[in-house]
Amino acid sequence: MTEKVKQYLTDHRDQHLQELSSFLALPSISSLSDHTEDVRKTAEWVASSLKSAGLENVEVMETDRHPVVYGDWLHADAKQTILIYGHYDVQPVDPIDLWKTPPFEPDIRDGKIYARGATDDKGQVFMHIKAIEAILQTTGELPVNVKLIIEGEEEIGSPNLDSFVEGHKEQLASDILLVSDTPMIDKGQPSICYGLRGLTGLEINLKGPNSDLHSGLYGGAVKNTAEALAELLATMHNTEGEITVDGFYDDVRPLTDEEKQMYEELSEDEPLKQQLGVQDLHGEAGYSTNARLWGRPTLEINGLYSGFQGEGIKTVIPSEATAKITCRLVPDQDPADIAEKIRQHVKRNLPVGVTVETTLFDQAKPFITPYDHPAIQAAGAALEQAYGEEATYARMGGSIPVVETFHTLLELPAVLMGFGLPTENFHAPNEHFHLENFDKGSEALVDFLFKV
Amino acid sequence: MTEKVKQYLTDHRDQHLQELSSFLALPSISSLSDHTEDVRKTAEWVASSLKSAGLENVEVMETDRHPVVYGDWLHADAKQTILIYGHYDVQPVDPIDLWKTPPFEPDIRDGKIYARGATDDKGQVFMHIKAIEAILQTTGELPVNVKLIIEGEEEIGSPNLDSFVEGHKEQLASDILLVSDTPMIDKGQPSICYGLRGLTGLEINLKGPNSDLHSGLYGGAVKNTAEALAELLATMHNTEGEITVDGFYDDVRPLTDEEKQMYEELSEDEPLKQQLGVQDLHGEAGYSTNARLWGRPTLEINGLYSGFQGEGIKTVIPSEATAKITCRLVPDQDPADIAEKIRQHVKRNLPVGVTVETTLFDQAKPFITPYDHPAIQAAGAALEQAYGEEATYARMGGSIPVVETFHTLLELPAVLMGFGLPTENFHAPNEHFHLENFDKGSEALVDFLFKV
Repeated sequence: MTEKVKQYLTDHRDQHLQELSSFLALPSISSLSDHTEDVRKTAEWVASSLKSAGLENVEVMETDRHPVVYGDWLHADAKQTILIYGHYDVQPVDPIDLWKTPPFEPDIRDGKIYARGATDDKGQVFMHIKAIEAILQTTGELPVNVKLIIEGEEEIGSPNLDSFVEGHKEQLASDILLVSDTPMIDKGQPSICYGLRGLTGLEINLKGPNSDLHSGLYGGAVKNTAEALAELLATMHNTEGEITVDGFYDDVRPLTDEEKQMYEELSEDEPLKQQLGVQDLHGEAGYSTNARLWGRPTLEINGLYSGFQGEGIKTVIPSEATAKITCRLVPDQDPADIAEKIRQHVKRNLPVGVTVETTLFDQAKPFITPYDHPAIQAAGAALEQAYGEEATYARMGGSIPVVETFHTLLELPAVLMGFGLPTENFHAPNEHFHLENFDKGSEALVDFLFKV
Repeated sequence: MTEKVKQYLTDHRDQHLQELSSFLALPSISSLSDHTEDVRKTAEWVASSLKSAGLENVEVMETDRHPVVYGDWLHADAKQTILIYGHYDVQPVDPIDLWKTPPFEPDIRDGKIYARGATDDKGQVFMHIKAIEAILQTTGELPVNVKLIIEGEEEIGSPNLDSFVEGHKEQLASDILLVSDTPMIDKGQPSICYGLRGLTGLEINLKGPNSDLHSGLYGGAVKNTAEALAELLATMHNTEGEITVDGFYDDVRPLTDEEKQMYEELSEDEPLKQQLGVQDLHGEAGYSTNARLWGRPTLEINGLYSGFQGEGIKTVIPSEATAKITCRLVPDQDPADIAEKIRQHVKRNLPVGVTVETTLFDQAKPFITPYDHPAIQAAGAALEQAYGEEATYARMGGSIPVVETFHTLLELPAVLMGFGLPTENFHAPNEHFHLENFDKGSEALVDFLFKV
């Protein structure tokens, strides 16, 4: 069955690349109000493309700023429903003079297509549309139900997505979320991301004397606020790199032995050291680098400031000292619970002579679809077939807000099957997308819909 | 003998206040180039005043910017030579509209004279001149030799004083330095400052990865540089408030039991807490507040910065983290030695995963003239006689660069007999000087020259 579908993709490749080029030629920069009309035209282009592919109920749906494009095909009866997410908006193009060819005049060279949005995320959105088109055109039906939601505000932080999803819960209700907006782990190496870390954080502001004091006149009589902050922060890790906030690890889902082994095999410490310019890597004792990055929580100081920061010397005792702290969280840690535990730790470990105010930051829940979940395994098998390589199962250390949105509001397991490469200059000049991944990825998407 | 001299001061009081007013009327703002000529005129005024008083070898001596005024009287044969230091330049007067009467139109009201420079330091310089004049006019000679050096750059940090003193070592050679440019401890409470703390310091710059890193992608793999800095700084004090840098206290001259008792009697913790707005004072265990401020060294963080310092959140792992540290030193600590000990401490306690660069700051030696030194005791006795109150013997927690200059280059014991009050708005609008201290202080200066 899928052979016929794949033949369709091969036969129409040139035409599809031409269509992709016209998609990439639309300057849908969501952050610049000059391009508001371009963004809307691009939404209409997507809608029209969905219709041509054979999707139904296609609609350009309004939000407070840029529209969402929706389409579905729901005739697979009792089969699962796959919600496919992507975005048609792109980043700005500055600095424009670093582009070899203009960002909105797509150019194919050396097996890559160059344009703003080529890899992030128009190219990948387009693959989904063409995979569906290929199946519908050759077989007349899809093996599963699908719903597509393609937004126009991802590059500005999806400010309206939460309320949109909240307002269309029934329309979007599905069994599995499929997202192609994450990178492959390496060229030629198919990979599935099955977990993301969450986020919580707070600002700690210590106050001491009511103004900066002359260190000659008052040095020795009051607690130095910056010193108090250093002492407080130093209580948050032990020498094993473990976080010493009471109860911090209580809800951490332990890594399975298989995960530990997979992650260790994927860890490449020497290249990472070189890349970051550090003599030693550092993290929680007893875990490989990737286990630390993907499967273990962290507590990081993101910013620190107190007293005099100019050139040279100013002999003050600072009146205030501030630290910004965020934690990357793993399943099943709760962001609010962890923030509260840190607040309690701060209270208990507050040096004498200073007072503290804490301010909470935004939070994101950690996310995981266990890698032995059937949808994940189906995605892996589809990738292996297309690439002729065993797929790797990995997590990512960061958060993806849209996944958090769908995971929280629709309670969906998610398959993050990305085809971009980390080297493809997303958000930078000369963004491009490898056609090898365009071809193999499209095949894998077809296979996934049959296997899932 | 001194009765006649004091009578002279009383008889000439109105005339002297008029002269002081004409001195204060000269806008000798050393920092503003518009006033360069005013500064020079003021130097000439001082020179002429020294001559009228009966001083000899009076000279306006050039430096790279504002001149120094010199005068002496050296006919007391084998008696000691007292070097009297003061400055005739003043601070700017902004914000001018907060002055009740114009800063350079001296106004006497409520027993105080209001003008820029009234207390810092023209008023006090003038007292020295008039004390000498009174003795010379009534007795025809001075009980000791005196040299006066009145500079015009104190308010801009005395940039040329070191080289001036260095270049005139023989001319300035003396037995005792007398300075009236420090505050009295309290109104009606005569006090002698017999020690100043020194200063040393350094900037510690920790470097981690070669750029700020995304805490999602890299959090867990590298040492957080801000965390490393906090941990490093937290090793510098123990819970007793003691400095844990190896050898830091080796050369500290212990306080005598008498000093401990004097300082404890002068400590007023509750008012200080109120003034500074802190719930608890804090310092080295086992010492009173004034002992900590005057007689014990400190290690203070003056500034701290790393990573993101804007509003809200930015999930970076900082590439660098910096702390500015200075120590107040007491006899017989050596600034260079202490800086080196801190460098060694930093090296030994450097967390794994970061590198460090240190930059030394300017240094100042601590200074003490033991309070039982005959010159100090003579000053105390003179004050007691003038004020009818027992003099207190205290130190100050800061440095006074000019004292450091004379102490280092001429190796002089110093008597800091100040008559200003901390409440007299020096460097601020409505600067003034209490005439009570002008009168009693002048008497005390006369007495001192007889007693020393």
